Amino acid sequence: MSDKVLTASENDFKVIGTRPIRPDGIDKVTGRALYGADRYAPGMLVGKVLRSPHPHARIRAIDTARAEALAGVKAIITKDDFGPVPASQKATLYNVMAQDKALFEGHAIAAVAAVDNATALKALELIQVDYEILPHVTDVVAAMADDAPLVHDDNFTKGVEPKPETPSNIAARLEFGHGDVDAGFDAASFVIEKEFATEAAHQGYIEPPACLATYSDDGSSELWCTTQGHFMVRDTCAALLGITVSRLRVSASEIGGGFGGKTAVYLEPLALALSRKSGRPVKMVMSRSEVFRAAGPTSSSSMRVKIGVDKDGRITAADALLNYQSGAFPGFITMLGAMSAFACYNLENVRSVGHEVITNRPMQVSYRAPGAPISNFAVESVIDELARKLDMDPIEFRLKNAAREGDKSSYGPRYEQIGLAKTLETVREHPHYQAALSKGHGRGVAVGFWFNFGGLTAISLNVNSDGTVTVSVGRPDIGGSRASMCLMAAEELGIPYENVRTIIADTSSLGYNDTTDGSRTTFSNGLAIIQAARQAKAIMCARAAKMWDLPAEAVEWVDGAVQPCGPNAGDFPPVSIAEIAAKAAQTGGPIAGHFEVNAEGAGVSFAAHIADVEVDEDTGRTTVHRYTVVQDAGKAIHPAYVEGQYQGGAAQGIGWALNEGYIYGDDGVMQNPGFLDYRMPVCSDLPMIETKIIEIPNTGHPYGVRGVGETSIVPPLATIANAIRSATGVRVNQVPMAPPVVLKALEEN
Amino acid sequence: MSDKVLTASENDFKVIGTRPIRPDGIDKVTGRALYGADRYAPGMLVGKVLRSPHPHARIRAIDTARAEALAGVKAIITKDDFGPVPASQKATLYNVMAQDKALFEGHAIAAVAAVDNATALKALELIQVDYEILPHVTDVVAAMADDAPLVHDDNFTKGVEPKPETPSNIAARLEFGHGDVDAGFDAASFVIEKEFATEAAHQGYIEPPACLATYSDDGSSELWCTTQGHFMVRDTCAALLGITVSRLRVSASEIGGGFGGKTAVYLEPLALALSRKSGRPVKMVMSRSEVFRAAGPTSSSSMRVKIGVDKDGRITAADALLNYQSGAFPGFITMLGAMSAFACYNLENVRSVGHEVITNRPMQVSYRAPGAPISNFAVESVIDELARKLDMDPIEFRLKNAAREGDKSSYGPRYEQIGLAKTLETVREHPHYQAALSKGHGRGVAVGFWFNFGGLTAISLNVNSDGTVTVSVGRPDIGGSRASMCLMAAEELGIPYENVRTIIADTSSLGYNDTTDGSRTTFSNGLAIIQAARQAKAIMCARAAKMWDLPAEAVEWVDGAVQPCGPNAGDFPPVSIAEIAAKAAQTGGPIAGHFEVNAEGAGVSFAAHIADVEVDEDTGRTTVHRYTVVQDAGKAIHPAYVEGQYQGGAAQGIGWALNEGYIYGDDGVMQNPGFLDYRMPVCSDLPMIETKIIEIPNTGHPYGVRGVGETSIVPPLATIANAIRSATGVRVNQVPMAPPVVLKALEEN
Repeated sequence: MSDKVLTASENDFKVIGTRPIRPDGIDKVTGRALYGADRYAPGMLVGKVLRSPHPHARIRAIDTARAEALAGVKAIITKDDFGPVPASQKATLYNVMAQDKALFEGHAIAAVAAVDNATALKALELIQVDYEILPHVTDVVAAMADDAPLVHDDNFTKGVEPKPETPSNIAARLEFGHGDVDAGFDAASFVIEKEFATEAAHQGYIEPPACLATYSDDGSSELWCTTQGHFMVRDTCAALLGITVSRLRVSASEIGGGFGGKTAVYLEPLALALSRKSGRPVKMVMSRSEVFRAAGPTSSSSMRVKIGVDKDGRITAADALLNYQSGAFPGFITMLGAMSAFACYNLENVRSVGHEVITNRPMQVSYRAPGAPISNFAVESVIDELARKLDMDPIEFRLKNAAREGDKSSYGPRYEQIGLAKTLETVREHPHYQAALSKGHGRGVAVGFWFNFGGLTAISLNVNSDGTVTVSVGRPDIGGSRASMCLMAAEELGIPYENVRTIIADTSSLGYNDTTDGSRTTFSNGLAIIQAARQAKAIMCARAAKMWDLPAEAVEWVDGAVQPCGPNAGDFPPVSIAEIAAKAAQTGGPIAGHFEVNAEGAGVSFAAHIADVEVDEDTGRTTVHRYTVVQDAGKAIHPAYVEGQYQGGAAQGIGWALNEGYIYGDDGVMQNPGFLDYRMPVCSDLPMIETKIIEIPNTGHPYGVRGVGETSIVPPLATIANAIRSATGVRVNQVPMAPPVVLKALEEN
Repeated sequence: MSDKVLTASENDFKVIGTRPIRPDGIDKVTGRALYGADRYAPGMLVGKVLRSPHPHARIRAIDTARAEALAGVKAIITKDDFGPVPASQKATLYNVMAQDKALFEGHAIAAVAAVDNATALKALELIQVDYEILPHVTDVVAAMADDAPLVHDDNFTKGVEPKPETPSNIAARLEFGHGDVDAGFDAASFVIEKEFATEAAHQGYIEPPACLATYSDDGSSELWCTTQGHFMVRDTCAALLGITVSRLRVSASEIGGGFGGKTAVYLEPLALALSRKSGRPVKMVMSRSEVFRAAGPTSSSSMRVKIGVDKDGRITAADALLNYQSGAFPGFITMLGAMSAFACYNLENVRSVGHEVITNRPMQVSYRAPGAPISNFAVESVIDELARKLDMDPIEFRLKNAAREGDKSSYGPRYEQIGLAKTLETVREHPHYQAALSKGHGRGVAVGFWFNFGGLTAISLNVNSDGTVTVSVGRPDIGGSRASMCLMAAEELGIPYENVRTIIADTSSLGYNDTTDGSRTTFSNGLAIIQAARQAKAIMCARAAKMWDLPAEAVEWVDGAVQPCGPNAGDFPPVSIAEIAAKAAQTGGPIAGHFEVNAEGAGVSFAAHIADVEVDEDTGRTTVHRYTVVQDAGKAIHPAYVEGQYQGGAAQGIGWALNEGYIYGDDGVMQNPGFLDYRMPVCSDLPMIETKIIEIPNTGHPYGVRGVGETSIVPPLATIANAIRSATGVRVNQVPMAPPVVLKALEEN
C-alpha cells in the first residue's frame, strides 16, 4: 500500500462509522411515508397514456373527437401539445410522446385526463390512431445489418471516418484505450477470444413512476413525483413545456426504488401538459406493464473480447468490441460500458470499442453502474479462462495485473489512491475463499469497477433556535443517505446524530443538484455539508466572541461548543451551540452555512465478489449457496447502509445473471411485461450475502468517502458465470444464464 | 423637508414602481391555489375540538371512555397528552388546551381524531366533563374592580411599586413618555379630557385556521397549515410537543387572510398530538363559530385621554390612561397601544399608561397595527375637539404639532427621516379635502402611526440554468409580497420581472424567519434579497472574469450582464446572466446568494385619512360617502399592492368603527359568533377608497422601503368619529359607532 494512504481509523471519528437508526424507517414500514402516488389535490384528474401496440409504425393521423366527446374527459394531448423544443431535448420529447412514428411497442401516442380512472381508460379506447405499420428490429446484431429496418432514417454513425453517407442504426462508434494492441497480441504467449451476449434487464423498482402536476398559468407550476433527480425533472419539463425554469417547482416524493431507472422523465411532462390544457391538477401512475414497455431498461448487448498474456501471466494486450443495444434513442451507456471494460487492470496495450445501436425498443436508461456489468461480464469471463489456462489462482492472476495508484487507466486518467489490490488481498484471506468447496459446487470470482461521480451540488445547513440543525439537500434519498448526511454534519459540528435532521428540499428552495446517480450523493453532498458546517462554525465562533467581547481569533470550536483560546482568551466556560443559537437574534440573526460546488475528486471504487453455486444438470437451474462482496468504500459513513448497498447490488446482479431478461416475440412485442414472467430474485432465491468493507480513503473527500452504490452490481454476472464454469466445466457466454440456456450449454458440451 | 431626503424618483428604477400582474392571481381566482384545508394524506383522520360552554369553570374530571369506545375514534387528547413545557410556553399551551380551568367560553377541553367528521362530532358528545362553574368577568372595567372574579389567582400586577400582595386581573402596568406632564398641563391655555371605550373586533379572515399534521416517530414530522408564520408555528409546536425543532417541518399553505389573526397556534399542536397518538395524519379545520370564540380577536378597551394646548395651538402636555382587555392571557398589545398613542406628535410632556387586563375572553391576538387604532381613536378624537376649540383647521393644528425628523418620539427613540408633515401637507392640498361638503355631510380627519418591524430574516436566491432566478423566502405572502420580492430581485439584477419567481420555503429549507407581521416583509425580505442578489452578482462577475481569463476587478455588472471594465479590460461583448448560468457547471457550480440577518432600520410610517359621512338621524346609521387615505410608503415597490393595503386597512377600520364588535351576554357567552351577527362591511357599505402614496424614503433600506400594511387601519376609528362629530355636532366616544350607539348619543344631545 502507498504511503499516501490516509488513516481512516475508527478512532478519528466520533459518530462517523456508527450505525444509528435511519430517520425514515418507521414512516416507511407503517405506511405513512408519501410516495409518488400518495399526494392528492382538490379537483384532481386522472391521466392515462395511449400506447402503441406496434414496435414501429408511422402515425398517419390521430382522431380524438370521440374521446373528447366522452363525459368526464377534460383534456387530451398528443405531440401537437408540445411546442418546438431545443435540439438537445428532441429525443427526450420524442421518447415521452411519439412524433411522426411510434418507435417501440408501448410508445406514448396520446394522453387523456379525465375525472376518474374508468373514464380515462374508456377515452383511450375511443382514440383512433391510423398507423402505417413498418418493419421493425429489436435485436442488436440484426439492427447493425446493412439491410436492417431503419429506426431513424436520418441517423448517421458518429465517430467514424470518413463520415458515412448512408444512414444506419449505429448511433455512434466510441473507442478508448492506449498503446499498440496488435503489437501486444504479437508479444503474447497465448490469447483467448470469446463472444458474449446479454439481454436487457429492468431496474425492477417496486414503485412505478407516478406524479401529481398542477400547472399554473402565471405563478409557479407544481410537480410532485417519484424521481432520483427533481432538478433534472424540473429543467427537462420546463424545456419540453416551453416555460422558464423558475416557473416550475418540483418536489421529490419518497422513492420506492430507482437504481438508475428514475433518472429520466416519462409521465411528468405529460401530466403538466394535461394540467395546462385542463386547468386542473392531474395525477398519473404507470402500470407495471407500462413500466416494462416504456420506462427504459438497460441495454442488451453483443460482445467480443480478446486478451493475450505472456508466460508469466502479465496481460500484454486487451481488446473488446462492445455492441450495446440502446433502444429507440442513443444515450451514454455504451460509453460508460466501453470506458469501464478494462478499468480493473494495468494494461500497456488496451482498446475497447463500443457501438451504440438503435432498435425498436424502449430507450435505455441507467441501471446501477450503467453499462459496466455488461462489458465486465465478457472481460471477467475471459480473465477467468486465462487464469485457468495459466493454471493460476484467479485472485493471484488479477493481483498480478491489478491497477494501482499512479497507473494509467484504460479510459484515460491516472489513478489516485485506490483499493483494488487491498480488496483482492482481502478476498484471498477471506474465510469464504479459504473454505473447501462442497461436492458438486463451483466457485467463481470476479472484480468490478465503477467511476463514481461528483457534480453540481448545493447544500444549506441551518442552526435552529434550540441548537439542533437542519440540513437541506437537493437529492432524493434512495439508500438511506439522509442518515449519512446527518452523521457527517453531526461529526463536523461535534453534536449528537439525533440533533441533525436532513430533508430533501424542493427545486425552488435550493440551487441545482445533479441527480442521485453515479454514486455521487454521499461523496458530494457530504463534501458540501462539511463545508457548510465549517461556515456555520465560523459564524458561531464569531457570535460567541461577540458575546464575550473577544477578538474572533481568541475563540475556537471544540466538541459542539465555542471556547476561548490563545493568549487573548478570557476566562469563560465553553458556550454550546444551543446557547449560541438561543442568542442568535441578539447577535446578528439566523445562523447558517451554504455551499454550492461542482464537486470533483470522487474516488473510483473496486469490488471483488465470490460465489459458490451448484447447477442442476437435469434442469439447468443454478443455485447460489454462498456469496461474498468485498469492496472499497473509502470511508463507510454508515456501515450498515454501505453493506446494504453491497448486498443490494449483488442481489440485483445475481438476478440479472440468472433469470432476468426482456423477451421479444417476432412481432416486436415484449412477451414478459410483468413480475410473473420477468423473474426477479426473491428471498428464497438468494443466500444471505456476506460483505466486507475495505477502507482506502478517497483523497478527494475530507472524510475519505467513495461512492458505494454501483460497483457492487458490476461483478455478479461474471462471478456467477465463472462459478458455473467451475461447477460444470462449461463456459456460459450468454446472460441471463437461465435454466434453458445453461441446459443447452451443458448439452452442447 | 429635510435635505437628507433620498431621491426616490421613478427614474432611478427600472421595474420598481411598476404594476405587473401578481404571480398567484390566476390560481387563486380559479380555485387551484391550496389553502390550509386543501391538502390530503392517505389514511387521514378528522380532528375536532370539544370546547367549554362556560366562560369560567374548574375542570374536575374528563371521562373519555365512552368516546374512545365509539367505532372509528382513533385518538382522544386532553391536557394530559402534553408534557411539561418551558415557562415561556405555559400560556400558549393553556390557551390551546385548557389545564385545570376553562378560562373562556370556547376554550378547548379535549380533541378527538376519528375516521370521519360525523364520528368525530359524535365522539365529542360522548366526552363527559365534570365542570365546577366559577364566577366570570368579560368587561375590562369590571375585571379591574377589587372584587372581580380572578381569572388567574396567581396573577400579581407587574410594573407597579411596591410589588402587590394581592392577586388581580391586571397583568401589567406600562408607562411611556417623557417630560413633566403636570407642569405641561399647568402651562396650557386649556385642556380637554375625555373617556372612550372600544369593543373587541375580529380580524375576520375568510379562511378559518386549518392544518394537516403527520407526526413521525423517528423522522421529520410534517405540518401543513394556514399561518402568517410557519417558523413560529414550528418552534411553538416543537416546544408544546416536547420534540426538538429539527424534528418538525412546517409548510405554509396559501393564506385566506390573516391580518394578525394567524400569528398564533390554535389547532396545530392539537393535530400533531392527535397524529402522534393515533399514528395517522390528522386534518383539523375550525368552524366560523370556533374562530370567533377561540381564535383571538383584538382587545376591547376603556380609556381616558387628556391634552392641553397653549394659545398658539402648541400642545403643552398629553396624558392617556389605556385599559386594554387582553382576554384570558396577557400579551403585548397593550404595550404597542400605549407606545403608539401619541407617536404622531412632537411633545415636550407626554405620558401614556397602559393596563393589561385579563378577562374570561379568548386571548387577544394581533389585529393589523395591534393596539394602535384603539388608543388612536381616543387621542385623535381629543385632538379634533382641541382644533375645534382653537378654531383651527384640524390639518393645520396637526401640522403645528407634528413629529418631524430628529424629534424625540413619545415612546423613546428619536425619529429618522419621516413623512408625517409631507402627508399632512398632501391632505391639505388634496381634492377631497378641498372639496365642498354636501348638505348634511360631515368631514373628519385623523392621523395615524405605526412602528413597522424588521427582525429575523433569511433568504436564498438561486440562479437557474436558463438565467431565470428563484427567490425563496420564509414568510407567507399575505398581501402580494411575492410580486414585490420579484420586483426587488429583478431591479437589483437588471432582469425582467417575469424572470424571477418567489416561493415560500418550508421551515426545513431556510433559516428562521420572523412571522409575516409588523409590516416587516417587504422591508426585511427586500433588504435581504437585495443583499443576496448582490452576492450572486459578485459570483457571476467572478465567473465571467474566469471565462474571459480577466482579473475579477476588470469586470462589472450592468443591466443583467457582465461586461469588461477598467484599464485591464479586454474587448469582449457583455455576457448575460443566461449565458453565465448556462456555463455554471464548467465555472464552479450552482450560483446563489444567501443572506441571514436580524433586520434593523424599519422606518416608521404615518397616514392621514379623510372621511365624508352622513348620519341618518332617525336610525343612527352612518353612511360613508367619500374616504381618502394618504400614507407614506417610503418607496412603493408595487404601487397597486400598496394602494390595496391602504384600502384594505381603511375598509377594516371603517368596519370596526361602525359595526364590528363582540357581544357578550351576562352568561359570559359570545352572542354573535358568525358573520350574520358580527357585521363586517360588504362592498355596498363602502365607497371606493381613494389613495395617495407619499414617498419619503426610509434611510434604513437600500430602496427606501417602509412597511405599509398596518398604518392604514389606525386612523379610521377617529376619522369616522370626527366626521360624525362634523355631521351631527355630537361626539361619539364608543366603538363600534353602531346605529343604536349613535342614536343614543344624538338623543342624549
